[in-house]
Amino acid sequence: MKKQASLEVLVEALRRLPGVGPKSAQRMAYHLLQHDRDGLAALGHACSNADAQIHHCELCNNFTESTVCETCVNSDRDGELLCIVETPADLLMIEQTMTFKGLYFVLMGRLSPLDGVGPQDIHLSKLVQRATNGVVREVILATNFTNEGEATAHYLGETLKAQGLAVTRLARGVPLGGELEYVDPGTIARAMLDRRST
Amino acid sequence: MKKQASLEVLVEALRRLPGVGPKSAQRMAYHLLQHDRDGLAALGHACSNADAQIHHCELCNNFTESTVCETCVNSDRDGELLCIVETPADLLMIEQTMTFKGLYFVLMGRLSPLDGVGPQDIHLSKLVQRATNGVVREVILATNFTNEGEATAHYLGETLKAQGLAVTRLARGVPLGGELEYVDPGTIARAMLDRRST
Ligand SMILES: [Zn+2]
Ligand SMILES: [Zn+2]
Repeated sequence: MKKQASLEVLVEALRRLPGVGPKSAQRMAYHLLQHDRDGLAALGHACSNADAQIHHCELCNNFTESTVCETCVNSDRDGELLCIVETPADLLMIEQTMTFKGLYFVLMGRLSPLDGVGPQDIHLSKLVQRATNGVVREVILATNFTNEGEATAHYLGETLKAQGLAVTRLARGVPLGGELEYVDPGTIARAMLDRRST
Repeated sequence: MKKQASLEVLVEALRRLPGVGPKSAQRMAYHLLQHDRDGLAALGHACSNADAQIHHCELCNNFTESTVCETCVNSDRDGELLCIVETPADLLMIEQTMTFKGLYFVLMGRLSPLDGVGPQDIHLSKLVQRATNGVVREVILATNFTNEGEATAHYLGETLKAQGLAVTRLARGVPLGGELEYVDPGTIARAMLDRRST
C-alpha cells in the first residue's frame, strides 16, 4: 500500500475546517506551499501547540491554558453575578461593552434537540455546580435571541431557579439607532411590553 | 512581556489562509478546539510534514516529495511534448482529460507586471533549460485564457520559438454544449477564424 502523499494529507486536513470545500482546501494548500512557507510552518506549530495546551477552565468552561482562566482568578470581578453565554466569542462581545464585572459560564453551544445536542452537551452539571457555589446570587442568561438560544435560556432558567437562584435575561427591545419603520413587529411588541418609565 | 496565548497564535495562523478573515479564523479555531480535536492535531501534523517534505520537482517544477516527480520519471510518457501550465491544479485538469501523454512544466503562477510578477517568478530560466534538453520538440502553451494567461503564453511562445522549438496553444472555440446565443461574441469570432473542415 502506497503511503499517502503529504500534499493530499494537507488538503484533507484543511477540508476539515468549517466552510472549506475541496476546491478551496486545494487552493489554500497550494498558496501555503508556493507563497507562504512561513505561514505553513506557523500553522503547523500553532495547531499542534493549541491542541496540546488549550483545554476548558475548571470554573467557567471557557478555553484556557491554565487550570482556571484569567477572568475567573481576577479578584476584582464580582463573584455574585454569573453570566451564561453560548460561545467564547459571545463572552468577548460582552467584555467589549465594559458593562459587566461579574463572572461567566460558557456553554460551548446551545440546546438543539433536532441536532442531538442535549443538556450534557452544554455542560449542565458543571454549570449547576458552578452556580450553586454559595457565592453566586444572580444568573444572567445571555444566550442568543434565536429560537435555540431562547429555548436554552428557558431550560437553564427553570433549572437554576429550582436551585433558588435569581435568574435574569438580557433585555430585548429596539436596537440603538433602530427606526421603528424597519424593526420587525415582534421586536416592537416586546419593546412595548417591556417599556420602562423614564 | 507576556507570552502570546496559544489561541491567539492559532487564530493568527488561520488568518494567513487565503480567503480567511478575522471572524472566520476565530470560528475555525473554536470549531477545532471544541468539536474536532483530532482535526486540529491532524492539521498540525499535515502542515509541519508538508513544509518539511514538499518541494519543487527538478524537471517540471510541480510539487513533489522526491527529487524528480512521478510524472517526470514515467518512461511511458512522451518526452517530445512539453505542456506548460500555470498551476498544479491545471495539470490535474489536463491529466483528467486523458488526452495528453507528454510531460509538463508548471509555472506556479502567471506574468503579472502590475503585481510585480516577472519572468523570474514563473521560473523562466528553469523552463528554458527544461525545454531545450534536446528531446523536447513541441511546447504546448496551456496557460489560462485570461488576459494574464494570454500575455504569459505570448511571452513564453516568443522566448521558446527563439530557441527553435515548435510552439502551440490550446485551441479556443465554442465550449462543448455551448449555445451560440449565450456564448460571448469574442469566443464566436475566434471560433469562426479557427474553423476547421469536417
Ligand atoms: Zn474561567
Ligand atoms: Zn516533475
